[in-house]
Amino acid sequence: MAVEIPPLVKPSRLRSRGGLFGECLAEFLGTCVLVSFGCGVVAMAVAALPGSGRTAGPTTFFLGAGDWLLISWGWALAVTFGAYVAGGVSGAHLNPAVTLAFAVRRGFSWCKVVPYMASQLVGAFVGAALVYGVYHDAINTFDRAMTGPKTNGHTLATFSIFGTFPAAYYQGGIWGPLVDQIVGTAFLVMFIVAVVDRRNTAVQANLGPLVIGFAVAAIGMSYGANAGYAINPARDFGPRLFTWLAGWQDLALPGTLAGSFGDYFWIPIVGPLVGGVTGVLAYDLFIGDVLHTRSQLAELPEIGRTRPETD
Amino acid sequence: MAVEIPPLVKPSRLRSRGGLFGECLAEFLGTCVLVSFGCGVVAMAVAALPGSGRTAGPTTFFLGAGDWLLISWGWALAVTFGAYVAGGVSGAHLNPAVTLAFAVRRGFSWCKVVPYMASQLVGAFVGAALVYGVYHDAINTFDRAMTGPKTNGHTLATFSIFGTFPAAYYQGGIWGPLVDQIVGTAFLVMFIVAVVDRRNTAVQANLGPLVIGFAVAAIGMSYGANAGYAINPARDFGPRLFTWLAGWQDLALPGTLAGSFGDYFWIPIVGPLVGGVTGVLAYDLFIGDVLHTRSQLAELPEIGRTRPETD
Amino acid sequence: MAVEIPPLVKPSRLRSRGGLFGECLAEFLGTCVLVSFGCGVVAMAVAALPGSGRTAGPTTFFLGAGDWLLISWGWALAVTFGAYVAGGVSGAHLNPAVTLAFAVRRGFSWCKVVPYMASQLVGAFVGAALVYGVYHDAINTFDRAMTGPKTNGHTLATFSIFGTFPAAYYQGGIWGPLVDQIVGTAFLVMFIVAVVDRRNTAVQANLGPLVIGFAVAAIGMSYGANAGYAINPARDFGPRLFTWLAGWQDLALPGTLAGSFGDYFWIPIVGPLVGGVTGVLAYDLFIGDVLHTRSQLAELPEIGRTRPETD
Amino acid sequence: MAVEIPPLVKPSRLRSRGGLFGECLAEFLGTCVLVSFGCGVVAMAVAALPGSGRTAGPTTFFLGAGDWLLISWGWALAVTFGAYVAGGVSGAHLNPAVTLAFAVRRGFSWCKVVPYMASQLVGAFVGAALVYGVYHDAINTFDRAMTGPKTNGHTLATFSIFGTFPAAYYQGGIWGPLVDQIVGTAFLVMFIVAVVDRRNTAVQANLGPLVIGFAVAAIGMSYGANAGYAINPARDFGPRLFTWLAGWQDLALPGTLAGSFGDYFWIPIVGPLVGGVTGVLAYDLFIGDVLHTRSQLAELPEIGRTRPETD
Repeated sequence: MAVEIPPLVKPSRLRSRGGLFGECLAEFLGTCVLVSFGCGVVAMAVAALPGSGRTAGPTTFFLGAGDWLLISWGWALAVTFGAYVAGGVSGAHLNPAVTLAFAVRRGFSWCKVVPYMASQLVGAFVGAALVYGVYHDAINTFDRAMTGPKTNGHTLATFSIFGTFPAAYYQGGIWGPLVDQIVGTAFLVMFIVAVVDRRNTAVQANLGPLVIGFAVAAIGMSYGANAGYAINPARDFGPRLFTWLAGWQDLALPGTLAGSFGDYFWIPIVGPLVGGVTGVLAYDLFIGDVLHTRSQLAELPEIGRTRPETD
Repeated sequence: MAVEIPPLVKPSRLRSRGGLFGECLAEFLGTCVLVSFGCGVVAMAVAALPGSGRTAGPTTFFLGAGDWLLISWGWALAVTFGAYVAGGVSGAHLNPAVTLAFAVRRGFSWCKVVPYMASQLVGAFVGAALVYGVYHDAINTFDRAMTGPKTNGHTLATFSIFGTFPAAYYQGGIWGPLVDQIVGTAFLVMFIVAVVDRRNTAVQANLGPLVIGFAVAAIGMSYGANAGYAINPARDFGPRLFTWLAGWQDLALPGTLAGSFGDYFWIPIVGPLVGGVTGVLAYDLFIGDVLHTRSQLAELPEIGRTRPETD
Repeated sequence: MAVEIPPLVKPSRLRSRGGLFGECLAEFLGTCVLVSFGCGVVAMAVAALPGSGRTAGPTTFFLGAGDWLLISWGWALAVTFGAYVAGGVSGAHLNPAVTLAFAVRRGFSWCKVVPYMASQLVGAFVGAALVYGVYHDAINTFDRAMTGPKTNGHTLATFSIFGTFPAAYYQGGIWGPLVDQIVGTAFLVMFIVAVVDRRNTAVQANLGPLVIGFAVAAIGMSYGANAGYAINPARDFGPRLFTWLAGWQDLALPGTLAGSFGDYFWIPIVGPLVGGVTGVLAYDLFIGDVLHTRSQLAELPEIGRTRPETD
Repeated sequence: MAVEIPPLVKPSRLRSRGGLFGECLAEFLGTCVLVSFGCGVVAMAVAALPGSGRTAGPTTFFLGAGDWLLISWGWALAVTFGAYVAGGVSGAHLNPAVTLAFAVRRGFSWCKVVPYMASQLVGAFVGAALVYGVYHDAINTFDRAMTGPKTNGHTLATFSIFGTFPAAYYQGGIWGPLVDQIVGTAFLVMFIVAVVDRRNTAVQANLGPLVIGFAVAAIGMSYGANAGYAINPARDFGPRLFTWLAGWQDLALPGTLAGSFGDYFWIPIVGPLVGGVTGVLAYDLFIGDVLHTRSQLAELPEIGRTRPETD
């Protein structure tokens, strides 16, 4: 058994089975669920609900508060059920930024980092494909009806179902969305480590996945519209790769927007990885390690950051 | 006692009473609650809230993001309280797709499958009748005010209170809504078996019905507008039968839509039954049975899939 | 100690203190909270949010799906926190229909029925006065801005903050709203007795008040717009009495609407009282007493319906 | 160990570490989270969501029910996760009104009152700076697009992201918003002390922070639009100080509104401090101390109001 605390769950009998391959399967399925439901709810708001997003006529498009509530709750529940599916096996990271942060400060085995991240990316890719499979009629109908600028027949609005891009008010600047991604992911990881820290107010009754989902809702409601709150490199790059293959071309990769970004794709990768580590460090600085030495921390076996991996 | 795990609850004293007849009464009442509240919230959005659904004037009709949030939360709570009412007696399947999936992979007695499904169907029919009893003034007022195409004086909008139909962008194709129903129900059953799997992150404190309700909210928010997220043969066919008798005629049965579908009614029956089994198989393939043989599974008594029914 | 099960909570040390007088104080405060927040959220939707309810201009008024979501969640949380405040002392009935149903079928002492109901009514009256105290500027500004029919300067819209009235599509008929109140309250009480029945899936971790609040949300979302979902005689009659004294005159009492009802006020009293008893009887018929005799029920001490009151 | 009950949590090992300095760091970080997410969601509704708030054109601005739902849930989750972060260390007051009320009636050490309050204020200031850091592009774009009255280029709408002000219908009166702040904070503190009172229906499974967040949602939905539901002196004055420094000038301090208030800033300070004490007194009067003498209360060690601070 690894010594890290799984982010959401107590050690389970499922966890002891399957080994790393089983954990990767769980990360794959959990992230697939996460993206299937997360991208699915944006597809609803953009392309499937006839009353949404087109208040300003067929050529322009925007989302209002009602759409944003729908999207925020939808992504929240996407994370919740991804975590319930995978939790007992892999600890339900579902996010390379979480995996990296847990490796840096929670004793998660560095040997598992790449397999976890790869499984998350594949899961996100497959999840995006599933959304496209269910929604391609809606997407194509929507894209045909819009009369604004298109790339290979596709609009930025339908790309937004899958990948993220910055709000117009950033005017193509890099630092605005990069800071947004760092801040958002720092809070995400801070909340996750708080909610599972048994020395703190750790959620019990196996409701961690629900509360973590609400953390994602909080980030979506409070920071989501700046740059689409990817806060997860796999969640953005997997669907981005899929849409690049499926015809959105440079809207997806390298993520060229009208006249501004040459390539946006790396911001929702780098930002969350930096932010996740920032979040766990901030938590440990202000809460977890207050005035304590490393030797004292070693006495807290349930965090067990310094014990060797024995799995 | 049967060896299956009840989907939401621990064995209760209520369960040991009443036998199969008591379980059927509970499935009846639970599914009646589910449909009473589920169809009730659509009746609110379509016919009772004066500000909803008629943005485009009295002849056309659509639901926006606010309506969809209302409908998603309403159906979620409908499932939650149906499950709280029936949970301790019957395990609160409330859905033939759940019953079939539990028979296929969770040791639910095949002898009980038909009685459970029949009880669910009757409960759904009675629930629809109750909604019509409370809302017939609203429904008739709405149908009279609309000026578009009608069947026997009823609109497709008021049929949508009771039964499901595919979005216009499917253009009458069968595969689109069929895939949607399979995918939606597969996720529903995957989430249910995850949330009650005690080897995984099973919800405790008897909050399973609440979390299962949120699973239905997730499906509604992320996949609901494609084909009305029946994801439950009883929930669709019971009210469909009622509306056929109550005057909606071929809008209800065989489910003829304008120029496209000859008969739609079988899709929300076949799709969910196929999807439910798919969901539990996918869960067991990626999570539950990872690298394990059947003999090892037999050692997990709380799943006990292979022990004979002894009730 | 009384033998009844408190609706939401385990026996507490607070409960053993204070006796009936303490219980009445708790029912008073809990119902005051319930009405303060319930009527408060309608005041928000009607008179305080500048963007709500006046889409059709200053002379007409209606609430859309967004307003209804706000109202449904607001009333839900009103009940939740009313129940958390009073739960440990009085059992948090907060509703004469609940008190009557628990007296009829859950062994609640008949001697306490009138004191409980009176405390609830006084609490509801004071809660309405509090809402008026905070919102009278908003209410008066709103009423002045509207140009439609008024009673003593007040509109039906501002009366709707406090008391209920039936939807226009009932056209003044009595049976429509009466059936609506019976059905809504029957489900409310059915859900309460299900959620606290320890033989069934009783909510644990003292989250009963939260789930009961969600039950009220379910009723609001699925049945609320027919007749304002009073489902509680105190919640309607207390504020109605207050508004009658505060100047709404016959809009409040006897509840005269334009040309139709001579007196509506008794419907949200009689309907809920009948409905509550109906709900507990339906639960016991289909779930609680399935195939069991009364003598067997006596063996279930935690329900203990037949043991004498010994408090 | 101090004898007070932490508002949300059981005694934890984190709590025994760090002493007062550690508690102040936790209050700082928790309040920073609270304001970062609370002000963040208003920034979303006002300046980042293109479909929100500008229904009436670029010169006027208001928020509808959808925006208000977004803001209410966003603030609720802001409090929830602020409390999860700080709970195990400081008890997660995050609010000078809570700190004062706990000092007056729950044995919280008077020596800690000023350090706690100062930490909360600094946390709120930093949280506001973080929101400005992420949103300044959105804020500046919004302010440039609006054509109404501005102070140093900033509108009242963008000030509302950070600080509160009374609704127009108060017409500059002091008593309306002051009563609103007293009532709102009284209920907030009443709900907090109810939810953590182990003699009453105290929330278990460490879900207190979630339920306390819902209490804030309740206040936002039912009383929020009157004067912006500060209900927390630090939450209002910290961001107010920041915006005063950042260029909003007298909109922020002393809080001058068009022709009415000379200085509004003190109302969201005094109102909540008075209200918080009122709330705990009302709870103890009606619930906690019913008919009991102080000597009996001393026997309840888990409240332990009269035992000396021994930490």
